[in-house]
Amino acid sequence: MSTKIRVTVWNEGRHEKTSPEVAKVYPKGIHGAIAAGLTKQGDFTVKTATLDQDDEHGLPEKLLAKTDVLTWWGHMAHGDVKDEIVDRVQKHVLQGMGLIVLHSGHYSKIFRRLMGTGCGLKWREAAEMERLWVVSPSHPIVRGLGQYIELEHTEMYGELFDIPQPDEQVFISWFEGGDVFRSGCCWNRGAGKVFYFRPGHETFPIFHNKQIIQVLANACRWAARPTGTAYSLDAPNIPVPLNPIPKKDH
Amino acid sequence: MSTKIRVTVWNEGRHEKTSPEVAKVYPKGIHGAIAAGLTKQGDFTVKTATLDQDDEHGLPEKLLAKTDVLTWWGHMAHGDVKDEIVDRVQKHVLQGMGLIVLHSGHYSKIFRRLMGTGCGLKWREAAEMERLWVVSPSHPIVRGLGQYIELEHTEMYGELFDIPQPDEQVFISWFEGGDVFRSGCCWNRGAGKVFYFRPGHETFPIFHNKQIIQVLANACRWAARPTGTAYSLDAPNIPVPLNPIPKKDH
Amino acid sequence: MSTKIRVTVWNEGRHEKTSPEVAKVYPKGIHGAIAAGLTKQGDFTVKTATLDQDDEHGLPEKLLAKTDVLTWWGHMAHGDVKDEIVDRVQKHVLQGMGLIVLHSGHYSKIFRRLMGTGCGLKWREAAEMERLWVVSPSHPIVRGLGQYIELEHTEMYGELFDIPQPDEQVFISWFEGGDVFRSGCCWNRGAGKVFYFRPGHETFPIFHNKQIIQVLANACRWAARPTGTAYSLDAPNIPVPLNPIPKKDH
Amino acid sequence: MSTKIRVTVWNEGRHEKTSPEVAKVYPKGIHGAIAAGLTKQGDFTVKTATLDQDDEHGLPEKLLAKTDVLTWWGHMAHGDVKDEIVDRVQKHVLQGMGLIVLHSGHYSKIFRRLMGTGCGLKWREAAEMERLWVVSPSHPIVRGLGQYIELEHTEMYGELFDIPQPDEQVFISWFEGGDVFRSGCCWNRGAGKVFYFRPGHETFPIFHNKQIIQVLANACRWAARPTGTAYSLDAPNIPVPLNPIPKKDH
Repeated sequence: MSTKIRVTVWNEGRHEKTSPEVAKVYPKGIHGAIAAGLTKQGDFTVKTATLDQDDEHGLPEKLLAKTDVLTWWGHMAHGDVKDEIVDRVQKHVLQGMGLIVLHSGHYSKIFRRLMGTGCGLKWREAAEMERLWVVSPSHPIVRGLGQYIELEHTEMYGELFDIPQPDEQVFISWFEGGDVFRSGCCWNRGAGKVFYFRPGHETFPIFHNKQIIQVLANACRWAARPTGTAYSLDAPNIPVPLNPIPKKDH
Repeated sequence: MSTKIRVTVWNEGRHEKTSPEVAKVYPKGIHGAIAAGLTKQGDFTVKTATLDQDDEHGLPEKLLAKTDVLTWWGHMAHGDVKDEIVDRVQKHVLQGMGLIVLHSGHYSKIFRRLMGTGCGLKWREAAEMERLWVVSPSHPIVRGLGQYIELEHTEMYGELFDIPQPDEQVFISWFEGGDVFRSGCCWNRGAGKVFYFRPGHETFPIFHNKQIIQVLANACRWAARPTGTAYSLDAPNIPVPLNPIPKKDH
Repeated sequence: MSTKIRVTVWNEGRHEKTSPEVAKVYPKGIHGAIAAGLTKQGDFTVKTATLDQDDEHGLPEKLLAKTDVLTWWGHMAHGDVKDEIVDRVQKHVLQGMGLIVLHSGHYSKIFRRLMGTGCGLKWREAAEMERLWVVSPSHPIVRGLGQYIELEHTEMYGELFDIPQPDEQVFISWFEGGDVFRSGCCWNRGAGKVFYFRPGHETFPIFHNKQIIQVLANACRWAARPTGTAYSLDAPNIPVPLNPIPKKDH
Repeated sequence: MSTKIRVTVWNEGRHEKTSPEVAKVYPKGIHGAIAAGLTKQGDFTVKTATLDQDDEHGLPEKLLAKTDVLTWWGHMAHGDVKDEIVDRVQKHVLQGMGLIVLHSGHYSKIFRRLMGTGCGLKWREAAEMERLWVVSPSHPIVRGLGQYIELEHTEMYGELFDIPQPDEQVFISWFEGGDVFRSGCCWNRGAGKVFYFRPGHETFPIFHNKQIIQVLANACRWAARPTGTAYSLDAPNIPVPLNPIPKKDH
């Protein structure tokens, strides 16, 4: 029996079909690039799914039940993701499935659902340099990195990022144009772990970058569904107390 | 101009109409008891609203815009709260309105929305004693209390409480029957503060208890909308950088 | 009886005596500039104290007992602060006195004591621009500010800042030279609140800057000793239980 | 080369020498019982050290450099631990060595050093029942446990526990006599992980309990020094910026 971590790479997949520029950077789709990068690492079994694949966006109950970590990239069609699929993904996260939310996925229904906030931010497309500083150097997500990652040309995301304060802050980004951003953030939700990672534009070749793939692989290992967790989503009545309750007159 | 804190006390209000037992304990409704208790404190302007009051559950945009803190009690009809009103309340919380969620409100749509988790718990009705231990003694919410509050007869809520770890843990409860519960929990969401407070059953006279009212009053003062906060829920494009971006060939 | 917040501004005060350049920027000492700025706000009673003032560094038990907030600036003589005075300050913080640690105070004994970590960081003196981004816009410490503070010429402090993750992250700085820094950080320690604020070099006129003084004033209001807090530092034996313990054979 | 986790079990070891009752429960010392329990798990290389072993309390630099996790039990002789050894242990924790602090170790110099608070609590010896409720069910430290651990006869520790709020709350205890306690708490300090675990009295046979040993083993796996972490404790000057700083007139 395989003990590999089972990753499902989800991609909206619309840009690739409508923009020759995007198709050129990601000929097999953003999902294809991420899947290829993770597969090379050797310890993952990777599947992919996309929004328009079928009427469940490629995410049937059966697949999520066998998914240890789901990665999520979306941008122009967040509103087209059905609420019942968002419900389903949320349920699996609470029961232990890891979720890695990428770049413009900050505005996806599932991320906003799990955060409880608006998840807005500032942005600018000026091909400026981003430097992601590691502020939690012993965190498993930064294994193998140095003090920072540099991306020569990126879209800028700037504060205020409308999120609950992360349980663990892993990266903070510096941008050439004068902005900062909390670009690598961890939260616990139920039995599941959530990691938001900022890099990943559709026309910059971010998901071909070795360090970015390294972070994604580290994050998948960190977020993988814990073995043997039984996490109840119920609110059960427990009529019989564990300790006797003294009788009283009232 | 009044500088009083403007509190809106929301109550589902169904139990009072259908159960003589509840009506006897709360002849003016749970909202009436809470409103009376807060009003006596002197520094609040209190309004009330209930689920069946009108087709906006008594929570029109106009009222929420002038509400510094909203308290929320619901139990049997969480599903009857319209999603658009939940959206509205969430928006106001993110923009700075405080929210105090009481007892069975743990399962309300608005609390689950803001937490991102299932918010389930264990429960038992055995009229057992609860002791709420203060674990954050300098927190404004416990001002005027001693080391704990004792409630002679309460419904039990037990762990696991399916919430994100609180930003500040204020109370932890001990129950006669052998359970513990994180019974006073604070979170930040956007510009707003959220406090969950466990006590408050419909047939135990919890909201006539002076210490409980003291906690609610403290919590309203703590959660009151901060003056002058401008909190954007947008994701604005900022095309002109604050610092010049060096020209590059790419 | 005055209800003003009682602030004690502590300064190492050595640079001012040995460096004409520093004395020119701060003719009444760094403590003098901070005290003047706070006094103008109107709601503070301000005293000052310095390292070489007397054999208790100007911080007798009697003064600390009547101090709501202590601000701390030190740089070249951290090692000259007596351990017994550090013990004393720590005790008062745990019992509710607020502590505002400024700039190079990151390496002071008292800050390292309260953090439990090394509190190191990177630094560079190149008179570069710093922009402090607000990442917690409804926090009382940023009241009255816009989205950021700009300081035209500052010393740089860069990550990794060796601190426990802040309970609340208020500012993150961007530096012209390519670095970021967690420049406004809050922690709770016992009944006391601690705020670290990065700006404040001895030769840049930071403490004459109105926005910086505004932050210090806000921070003093936020950190002021809570009224009526009784915070025990003991480990008392409580032989008589609150609830009866059933007899058992063992 | 062995890939086992290297654990050093430290014990004050005084009770065992002076009290026949303790010696009967722990004939090989508390350290002997813990070491035996961990060794049986199969994935640890276990060494032991005690206060009176030599003039470095059995903790030479050489040993700590090869220790992935240090467990700490002390009670009556905290004051006899030399400050230089506390400095040494702290340095190693900040550089990545895990630290598991047991029971009365809450008052040890090293725990207080890392917390920055007084670390006091209430206590009672009445052989009462303790039930440790799991409040973080997917945490690696609770792997293999059910909803709670029951200890039939324990010393009571009660709130207020004078600690910084844990980064992760794993257990909360219920005591028969009416108290609660945050009994399993995680913090990050530098590159190191710290876990405080309440059970472990010198005359109750807690460290022979299989579930307690399971928690200790889980905690050692969780806290083990991360591979390849280079964590600087310095404050280096970085005169050359990564990005050019524009020239200005000032």
